[in-house]
Amino acid sequence: MSFITLTSDFGTKDHFVGAVKGAIYSELADAKIVDITHEISPFNITETAYILKNSYKSFPKGTIHIVGVDSELSADNKHIAISLDDHFFVCPDNGLISMIASEIQPTKIVEINIHDRVESSFPVLDVFVKVACFIARGGNLTVIGKEIKEYKKLIEIQPKVNQEQNQIIGGVLYIDNYGNVITNISRKMFNDIGKGRTYKINASRYTFTKIYNKYNEITDNNSTDTMQFDGNKLAIFNSAGFLEIAVYRSNLKTVGGASTLLGLEYRDPVIVEFFMESKPEYSSLN
Amino acid sequence: MSFITLTSDFGTKDHFVGAVKGAIYSELADAKIVDITHEISPFNITETAYILKNSYKSFPKGTIHIVGVDSELSADNKHIAISLDDHFFVCPDNGLISMIASEIQPTKIVEINIHDRVESSFPVLDVFVKVACFIARGGNLTVIGKEIKEYKKLIEIQPKVNQEQNQIIGGVLYIDNYGNVITNISRKMFNDIGKGRTYKINASRYTFTKIYNKYNEITDNNSTDTMQFDGNKLAIFNSAGFLEIAVYRSNLKTVGGASTLLGLEYRDPVIVEFFMESKPEYSSLN
Amino acid sequence: MSFITLTSDFGTKDHFVGAVKGAIYSELADAKIVDITHEISPFNITETAYILKNSYKSFPKGTIHIVGVDSELSADNKHIAISLDDHFFVCPDNGLISMIASEIQPTKIVEINIHDRVESSFPVLDVFVKVACFIARGGNLTVIGKEIKEYKKLIEIQPKVNQEQNQIIGGVLYIDNYGNVITNISRKMFNDIGKGRTYKINASRYTFTKIYNKYNEITDNNSTDTMQFDGNKLAIFNSAGFLEIAVYRSNLKTVGGASTLLGLEYRDPVIVEFFMESKPEYSSLN
Repeated sequence: MSFITLTSDFGTKDHFVGAVKGAIYSELADAKIVDITHEISPFNITETAYILKNSYKSFPKGTIHIVGVDSELSADNKHIAISLDDHFFVCPDNGLISMIASEIQPTKIVEINIHDRVESSFPVLDVFVKVACFIARGGNLTVIGKEIKEYKKLIEIQPKVNQEQNQIIGGVLYIDNYGNVITNISRKMFNDIGKGRTYKINASRYTFTKIYNKYNEITDNNSTDTMQFDGNKLAIFNSAGFLEIAVYRSNLKTVGGASTLLGLEYRDPVIVEFFMESKPEYSSLN
Repeated sequence: MSFITLTSDFGTKDHFVGAVKGAIYSELADAKIVDITHEISPFNITETAYILKNSYKSFPKGTIHIVGVDSELSADNKHIAISLDDHFFVCPDNGLISMIASEIQPTKIVEINIHDRVESSFPVLDVFVKVACFIARGGNLTVIGKEIKEYKKLIEIQPKVNQEQNQIIGGVLYIDNYGNVITNISRKMFNDIGKGRTYKINASRYTFTKIYNKYNEITDNNSTDTMQFDGNKLAIFNSAGFLEIAVYRSNLKTVGGASTLLGLEYRDPVIVEFFMESKPEYSSLN
Repeated sequence: MSFITLTSDFGTKDHFVGAVKGAIYSELADAKIVDITHEISPFNITETAYILKNSYKSFPKGTIHIVGVDSELSADNKHIAISLDDHFFVCPDNGLISMIASEIQPTKIVEINIHDRVESSFPVLDVFVKVACFIARGGNLTVIGKEIKEYKKLIEIQPKVNQEQNQIIGGVLYIDNYGNVITNISRKMFNDIGKGRTYKINASRYTFTKIYNKYNEITDNNSTDTMQFDGNKLAIFNSAGFLEIAVYRSNLKTVGGASTLLGLEYRDPVIVEFFMESKPEYSSLN
């Protein structure tokens, strides 16, 4: 049994997803196909990387992840297949792998070269499915591609640290279903640079001096009236390990979420300042 | 083979659903995971209960239903696992079970107590998946939790009957994909209180004196020109057995649905008045 | 193992899809259920046909496709089961089959007649699931229905050719997730009528004199700066074989797509004019 996941910007209305699943099942009737998402903002590689990075690891080793975002073949946008962390990725070489592989190096990368037949305006269906099924049947990457050493780097997503090492200049990486604003500042980076110093987080016109580990820590175990905290803004290390600006029990369609209430959008700056005195207000959990 | 369903307010864009599915498959490769929905309005327990109540029964006995809505653990929001009607539910004790269990009593309820490890800001992934897989492998509820007798009651959702027994004061429970407005008044309650009397249904500024059993009964089998009925308002007992205010062949994105055309929102009142004379206009079907 | 696909206008929030899947698994635990889409615009048969036509073929032969769009039974809207192109369709006889079957004739059509029990306001759950599972177990169509020869024709969707054979008057058939505007003019029709003549495509106030085969052909293999082409309008034969008016790397939620930028909506005219001189600007690929 092979697990194949799908991540794309196809949306869930058009025939694209159905056609791709049908094609996989036609080749591998007993495959297990799992949608990660098809709601990526069109052509948004940063979103793709964030979502994929935070979901692929929970799948069984050997899972093949097909990524259909900005996947049209061109001189500048090759198709690649990658073995990394005991998972496989079949995707365009548009930079998304650089975020996934920032901590774990790929074992093997090949540039797919089975395009010698018809030009396709739907490469996920015509190329990626074939490659994924080939891998699922135990095929070697080098049969469907030429081994390469380099992949495209996505550089815009890295936070910067100033020379004095007392400031992390990060930015908004992703806005989730609750309107929570996820930055590109990881817990690890925060701890490495902060070294236990006190800090202030600046996001839009708001500042935060505490980072929570759970959303409802804000209620301070006030179990009789937690609703008074609804709508409160907070900073948290989210379950993916990133600094997040959240609104407690938010709802984008009614009261709004952090993104709308604080006016934060993709790529807006979020800055952490560290101070001299070592007065730890945040105690790391793990 | 185990069936595990997922119901959440995660949305389908973020990594949450993919991560949960991957974690389940990593523990139980041959599980059958079925999405009920991930589009619950954030933190909306009434919606969760309505959707779950109307879908869980159609699954095979023994199915395990994971519910990820307002599931962060706190003193006031325990995690529970329930055996009910030959199904299992793994969910927060936030009141949703009270609507599902209004007619069928749980066989067993345990307060999950496997949280002794790391605090989690993603309990569905870190706790519910483990519990569900444990149950799927035939594990006993009392191994992963402490048996309890009480669960939280969700009281806001019950319609009231006046002392004279000639009025049901119900309210809007849910608005569906077509904009149809579903009330909390069940066919059973309507029949029990109404006892065949004539009636008038007041919803917003509209009144209805007939309840249909199928939407297209409104066309009166006028097969040559059913389109003239498009947009007509009607009252119906829907397939879930609740009184619903509908618009025939509605479309929320174009002509509007009952919710927008009648201006009805969640919790707005819908009132049934029964009259003295017993002149049955509605004949019960089942 | 049986493949059963679902195509509907149920949306993905309500309990409808979950209930249908549960019912199928209760009858056929080892079925493979695949969502094609549940995002059809309510009651939109043309959309249904377009999506289904472009996805069903990629599924394994013998797949059973359940269609839940405008499926309430009436004198004018029978339920049918069809064997066509080695696939099965269980659907209302509301015209959608005429588009799917425009090139391939059905092998067998039956009018489903198992409705002798309770009237249902949810026929997909109560009728279509039973029929699909019956077919999946190898049952013969004539056991659950009466063979018929005719199905309803959906005529609005055919483009017209003028008497002089120098004009195709087509229209907008579908708008996809990227806002791209798909017409009802197929590559085959274009080639048959055009016979290699030069042409001009009129869509809204724009004209196109070239049809691409891939979106990024517009960049002319300009690999150093493809972003300058973002937002450019183009005509293309899409992967489904239809003439499409697209915007290169569009995003409906930000910069807009062809539908919003050109102001094109469902059923708006798109007209191809062919000229006397045979000066082929478009070279067919297949």
